[in-house]
Amino acid sequence: MIMSQGVVHPVEAPPLQTEGAANVPLPRVRMKDLQGMPGTVGGLVLRVCQLLFATVSLSVMATTSDFPSVTAFCYLVAAAGLQSLWSLVLAIVDAYALLVGRRLHNSRIVSLFAVGDGVTSTLTFAAACASAGITVLIGNDLGACGRNHCTEFEAATAMAFLSWFTAFPSFLLSFWSLASR
Amino acid sequence: MIMSQGVVHPVEAPPLQTEGAANVPLPRVRMKDLQGMPGTVGGLVLRVCQLLFATVSLSVMATTSDFPSVTAFCYLVAAAGLQSLWSLVLAIVDAYALLVGRRLHNSRIVSLFAVGDGVTSTLTFAAACASAGITVLIGNDLGACGRNHCTEFEAATAMAFLSWFTAFPSFLLSFWSLASR
Repeated sequence: MIMSQGVVHPVEAPPLQTEGAANVPLPRVRMKDLQGMPGTVGGLVLRVCQLLFATVSLSVMATTSDFPSVTAFCYLVAAAGLQSLWSLVLAIVDAYALLVGRRLHNSRIVSLFAVGDGVTSTLTFAAACASAGITVLIGNDLGACGRNHCTEFEAATAMAFLSWFTAFPSFLLSFWSLASR
Repeated sequence: MIMSQGVVHPVEAPPLQTEGAANVPLPRVRMKDLQGMPGTVGGLVLRVCQLLFATVSLSVMATTSDFPSVTAFCYLVAAAGLQSLWSLVLAIVDAYALLVGRRLHNSRIVSLFAVGDGVTSTLTFAAACASAGITVLIGNDLGACGRNHCTEFEAATAMAFLSWFTAFPSFLLSFWSLASR
């Protein structure tokens, strides 16, 4: 028994050695860690802001009684809902990565983040622009704010724009880290 | 005279030698030449498409008599005009670079292109979304196409979207070439 263990130990040693080597930073750094990239504190802050603004936009628009009569406002609710969900999931991923001290440098994960960020931020921006067009039409061009909830529409549109303002840097940084690897 | 030329010639030789070396590709390639990047045939095709679609969008919207009454339509005309100008200038730059056989790999020029493409494509997309919101409101939600030029509004909006579809790849490729240098 003792002899057989003696034979086994030298075989188990290499994995211990490679575990120790994994803690030492590699000389060839594949991606630079800029604040705002996935798995950083800045990235988590961006996600929380996106989630916050999109949720407020969705809530404010959904509380108005006449939003379903305008297609652009329904689209804003849908886009803000999608943005909230995406930002929530990515905020959880970022928080987990920070808690366990792992870096999200996998090429496939970063490209998935880049595509997802690109799609959701584009949809949010499109919805915000369409709502802004309608809000300006109602308020300035038609002067019909007396019969409509202009304040709520404007607030929801502004929140959607703020959500996009925080979602677009996430997309650019994911794309940058994908291109610079 | 003949002797002085004989003296001058060996002095002129080194520049000729470096010109010959410049034609040989350097071992350290700083930017990959993907089709669609500035200074490539694909880039020129993208610029011409952007210019074409933006000009058609601008022309169609400007021919309607009642576009100045809606702010979003005025904004579409302005954004399509800016996109046309930017794409025209960049198309000329691309055509010149192709004709003289030079590559646009200068970091400052590429970052200028990336910023300009980002701004103009975002403005065009915002204008297209706002116009689409108004067009859908007039056509579907209010059913007031009888009193409005819905066909022209829809055509101008569609052309603005097509202009963005060809402007966004230009931005992504400029940004990519900037990040991957």
